[in-house]
Amino acid sequence: MAGRILIVDDIATNRIVLNFKLTAALYETAQATSAAEAIAKARDLRPDLIIVNVELRDINGIELCRRLRSDHLTRDIPIVMTSARRDPDRKIQALRAGAAEVFWKPLDDSLFLARLRSLLRAREREKELGVPAAYAPPSGFAEDIAGYEGPGHVAIVGSQIDWAHRLMRDLVQSTADRLCVLHDDAALSLSEASPAPDVFLVLADGGRPDKTLRLLSELRSRPLTRNSATCVLVPERAATLGAIALDLGANDVIEDMAEISELVLRLSRQLQCKRRADRQRSSLADELRMAVTDPLTGLHNRRYALREIQRIDELTRLSGRAYAVMMLDVDWFKTINDSFGHAAGDAVLVQMADRLRANLRPGDLVARLGGEEFVIATADTSLRAAQALAERIRHAIEETPFVLADGMPIGVTLSVGLTMGGGDTAPSSVSALLEAADQALFRSKSEGRNLVSVSRSAA
Amino acid sequence: MAGRILIVDDIATNRIVLNFKLTAALYETAQATSAAEAIAKARDLRPDLIIVNVELRDINGIELCRRLRSDHLTRDIPIVMTSARRDPDRKIQALRAGAAEVFWKPLDDSLFLARLRSLLRAREREKELGVPAAYAPPSGFAEDIAGYEGPGHVAIVGSQIDWAHRLMRDLVQSTADRLCVLHDDAALSLSEASPAPDVFLVLADGGRPDKTLRLLSELRSRPLTRNSATCVLVPERAATLGAIALDLGANDVIEDMAEISELVLRLSRQLQCKRRADRQRSSLADELRMAVTDPLTGLHNRRYALREIQRIDELTRLSGRAYAVMMLDVDWFKTINDSFGHAAGDAVLVQMADRLRANLRPGDLVARLGGEEFVIATADTSLRAAQALAERIRHAIEETPFVLADGMPIGVTLSVGLTMGGGDTAPSSVSALLEAADQALFRSKSEGRNLVSVSRSAA
Repeated sequence: MAGRILIVDDIATNRIVLNFKLTAALYETAQATSAAEAIAKARDLRPDLIIVNVELRDINGIELCRRLRSDHLTRDIPIVMTSARRDPDRKIQALRAGAAEVFWKPLDDSLFLARLRSLLRAREREKELGVPAAYAPPSGFAEDIAGYEGPGHVAIVGSQIDWAHRLMRDLVQSTADRLCVLHDDAALSLSEASPAPDVFLVLADGGRPDKTLRLLSELRSRPLTRNSATCVLVPERAATLGAIALDLGANDVIEDMAEISELVLRLSRQLQCKRRADRQRSSLADELRMAVTDPLTGLHNRRYALREIQRIDELTRLSGRAYAVMMLDVDWFKTINDSFGHAAGDAVLVQMADRLRANLRPGDLVARLGGEEFVIATADTSLRAAQALAERIRHAIEETPFVLADGMPIGVTLSVGLTMGGGDTAPSSVSALLEAADQALFRSKSEGRNLVSVSRSAA
Repeated sequence: MAGRILIVDDIATNRIVLNFKLTAALYETAQATSAAEAIAKARDLRPDLIIVNVELRDINGIELCRRLRSDHLTRDIPIVMTSARRDPDRKIQALRAGAAEVFWKPLDDSLFLARLRSLLRAREREKELGVPAAYAPPSGFAEDIAGYEGPGHVAIVGSQIDWAHRLMRDLVQSTADRLCVLHDDAALSLSEASPAPDVFLVLADGGRPDKTLRLLSELRSRPLTRNSATCVLVPERAATLGAIALDLGANDVIEDMAEISELVLRLSRQLQCKRRADRQRSSLADELRMAVTDPLTGLHNRRYALREIQRIDELTRLSGRAYAVMMLDVDWFKTINDSFGHAAGDAVLVQMADRLRANLRPGDLVARLGGEEFVIATADTSLRAAQALAERIRHAIEETPFVLADGMPIGVTLSVGLTMGGGDTAPSSVSALLEAADQALFRSKSEGRNLVSVSRSAA
């Protein structure tokens, strides 16, 4: 879909004018002539964006906005409001009700369209980060708990230092967030030692718009600041500058004549969005970690191991180096379980994992395949080195008894099957490789256990 | 880190000039005076970007580039090359060796710095998508298999239709990719019916740069085209246009005087990057799906269920509506397992999951908590409706025998514990809620099984 926009206005000429602008910009449009119809169509069509005229007659546009934002089917759709009357109080009410932006008519087309692009982009990015959407805490929740996270950190950035300090004095009265003033250069040379500000409030330099835009691009490209939110304060008549700033990735553009209460509201909204995105990023990372981890031992799991061996195989196929794969199986594990109980068996697996890890290099792979079976893969090695490693591990297990929860020592041994991949061996699939290691392991088992065997293909 | 760049050049004045430019732009820099030192420092410092002078004396810069790109420690670091001699063949060699871009000296600073920003941004984005990096197939692999994916789809976009068709005729000789010509407007009004092109090759309109830049911003903001790569073909002297295009998110900027072979190479590189990102996005989605799925029944797992109930709880706390939670446990499951074997037990669990799903609305949650225990949560309901639902489910299980693999029918029943959350109940934690449902379930079990019990708190 190219971007579907719902126009809500009860005056036909308004709808026609707006529809013309939007179709000229190649958006798909739908129209609602009342707030009631707007709610129905928003639920039904799930547009990417909704434009609401504040002056609706059945339900006030601000109230409509509030309702759309409290309905779980429509709450994530950004809402832009338009108003014929320039009224700062009403603007703040609309923003509080959840509108993303309020435009006075007549609209400045370049700024208006840039704002739509910016909102559509932000929404897609949120979706991407939030996949599946069900994970993300509902935005209402995020707003509720924002207070518990402690104050945020807002940096006012610009070369007009007097303006920056005046603004800081005004803001400090109305926000609990930590404020500081940074010169342009200082914003780009922050060190890793302290976390980057959550929000940069960039004061546009009306005389040197290129400087402001370049600063924005720099902030968005640097690893340290790219996830901070950026709000740009632009002179009232500098719509083009505002439009380009949005296209360059500024999260919000605010008129420099805005009242302090509006500024505070917009900054806190950016702060919340930024924190929500941080949380989503970190929960995504947690998910991924858990998806590849064996919960009992903390080693990687089977799925990860298979993929990682595949990866090692591909890398060595390019470099021509060899790698080793071993399958390891705890001897007489069923007997341990049956004699001492499952808790004892688990304790053995956990200690086994620790000892395997302790005997490997940082880059080596060790994973639990399931049950009492483990796999190790080590890149850039020779058969002789891999045999020595396998013997060292076998010995490390045999040498020192394991200890059960009640302090009882228990002797454990390990059988190993070893095979080689990459190098000048014939290319073969990873599953064939694991099969070979498994057959070698079977040989170790059948020849008495506590042994290392090398597969026929590698011997 | 603000962005660390390694400068590789054996001529001191070159290093000094470049170092001055980069520190003025507030990058951290490091320097290497030979290819050998460059390899050591690249491995050791892991800079975010490397700038290599082609004319090195110990190892040719192009060879250095090849080596950096085949070392797994440095292969992901983007490399920009500079050359004093304007030589298209050498440029193509450098690009083939893996350089991201080649600049002739003297450098145009605005375009040069915009390119660095673009590369740094792209690298951070890849990292974000690829977390943990170990998942992504190595880029060499991606290049190897690119051929197996079939031809890509490149759309040439611009209002200078003659130029577009001339270019298409030239390109068609040297690429297997599917080519088409689109007018600006057509690129923005693509329908969902056909997939978007992999790469947009945008012909800059030298006379109307604003039109080109706006098109770029639009392509990047539309849901359908935002993940396509965009390359912009700019007039040789339009460095500023190129710089802004990169800052607006163009993936590559190419001089319109470039030879067809260079153009083909750059397009195919963008195609590969785009496909790699597509794969990463889809494997990320797979990971996430598997992390929340019970492999046996395909239902959601315990972890997902707890979080989802938490989420329902938060949403209803805002809306004031009530929701129901039921714990369900298969009666005499151990006996089924012991009498008919584990495969029979698994078959019962799978059919149980199917029947539960069939009796719920699309928005309801059903998950396997582990063993023979399931949980259901349904939002916006009343105690009476939830009781009716629980009875319906209990009946649906009892009514029709389950069927084992050998066709044998087996009667199965279910015990249910039901509790209510949200609404006007006192707020309580999700774990307290599950505890209440569990106690109700225990009552069903102890009063004879095949029963629905309501928790004291909800009754």
